[in-house]
Amino acid sequence: MITTIGFDADDTLWHTETLFEKTHQKYKELLSRYHDSKTVETTLYATEMRNLELFGYGIKSFTLSAIETAITLTNGKISADEIKIILDFSKKMLRHPVELLAGVPETLHFLSKHYKIILITKGDLRDQERKFSESDLSPYFKYSEIVSEKTVSTYKKILHRYKIAPENFLMVGNSLKSDIIPILELGGTAVYLPYPLTWAHEKACLPPKDHNYFYQLEHIEELPALLTTL
Amino acid sequence: MITTIGFDADDTLWHTETLFEKTHQKYKELLSRYHDSKTVETTLYATEMRNLELFGYGIKSFTLSAIETAITLTNGKISADEIKIILDFSKKMLRHPVELLAGVPETLHFLSKHYKIILITKGDLRDQERKFSESDLSPYFKYSEIVSEKTVSTYKKILHRYKIAPENFLMVGNSLKSDIIPILELGGTAVYLPYPLTWAHEKACLPPKDHNYFYQLEHIEELPALLTTL
Repeated sequence: MITTIGFDADDTLWHTETLFEKTHQKYKELLSRYHDSKTVETTLYATEMRNLELFGYGIKSFTLSAIETAITLTNGKISADEIKIILDFSKKMLRHPVELLAGVPETLHFLSKHYKIILITKGDLRDQERKFSESDLSPYFKYSEIVSEKTVSTYKKILHRYKIAPENFLMVGNSLKSDIIPILELGGTAVYLPYPLTWAHEKACLPPKDHNYFYQLEHIEELPALLTTL
Repeated sequence: MITTIGFDADDTLWHTETLFEKTHQKYKELLSRYHDSKTVETTLYATEMRNLELFGYGIKSFTLSAIETAITLTNGKISADEIKIILDFSKKMLRHPVELLAGVPETLHFLSKHYKIILITKGDLRDQERKFSESDLSPYFKYSEIVSEKTVSTYKKILHRYKIAPENFLMVGNSLKSDIIPILELGGTAVYLPYPLTWAHEKACLPPKDHNYFYQLEHIEELPALLTTL
């Protein structure tokens, strides 16, 4: 019996990857005098992966990696004013209003009457707090957890902290790698809600369609109906 | 009766400000062709304060503000290779080994046998987690909380989460603004442990020497003796 539902935030409750995508476009235009779009994209991703352990996730980490990549790809020819433009991308992203996915407040409102709901999101502490607060969704959540990685051990600690047995827990998210696989490994139930865009780093594997506790939905609004069948 | 002790981390358990200080020196040398040391310091601080709400605390935020300041102070004349040097400062800081203050492991070892101990630190999630893990101090702590700000409401939430009454709680730290004043306001006990260097932002006020629940010590090793008198 499910008593508690965990929700990922970025691209599950509100749009994030679309914002990164727009910034990537502007970044590639900025560097288009030096390199084609594909080279810029590939090199930026390689820099981000190299820096991930040190910087972690989020907009500030992305910005530092984007500046580093721009310097490398231009052999140091990029001007300070162009680097300033990259810095400004970052501020624009950090100030961007929160845009909820369709059906989110209604579904959370309904579910919060029947289940305990927890936000479990990774990334930058301050930015995630800002988005959560601006989203006006916090009244529906009993707890919120901002973590630096979403591994089996992260989820184990959270379930332990709130005394939730894995068999009573269901996690909803758009990343197979971060939201689905670790939960299935722990013995919980997972609902995969794909988002049209996925950052390469989160593209880990194929959906485990044959797993007994794995479900895939198209819209968050289908969740209450699914829950009545579990 | 005190049952639980909260410890700040940066400059209470391990050195941090000395590392920032060294980086500031190198940063001022880098910009010395353009401006005197005082102007660089003041402008960097003003940039950091302007960006604080958006970026939060920590090394990545410092680095983004340092790059912005360098571009402004040189009217865009700073080269990409010099900006790369600032980026490298940031990586060096993030990789810097944790250096504990004298007496820290011994004192925590002793106190953890008699009290519940909680780490309460602000800053970057991943960097603080790395330092905590490298410090080898985690066995002494029952809980750890990395927060984006240390206000009365932050502490209230933490005490509520672990069901601790303020009168049973003592907080130890080097920042009057973040570790001491909010705790006294909440009705807890606070031990101020000044560090030789303090970032201007944390210099909020004079020690509230007349407050009944305020104590000031020179070394963490004096803490067990103080606790026997409370």
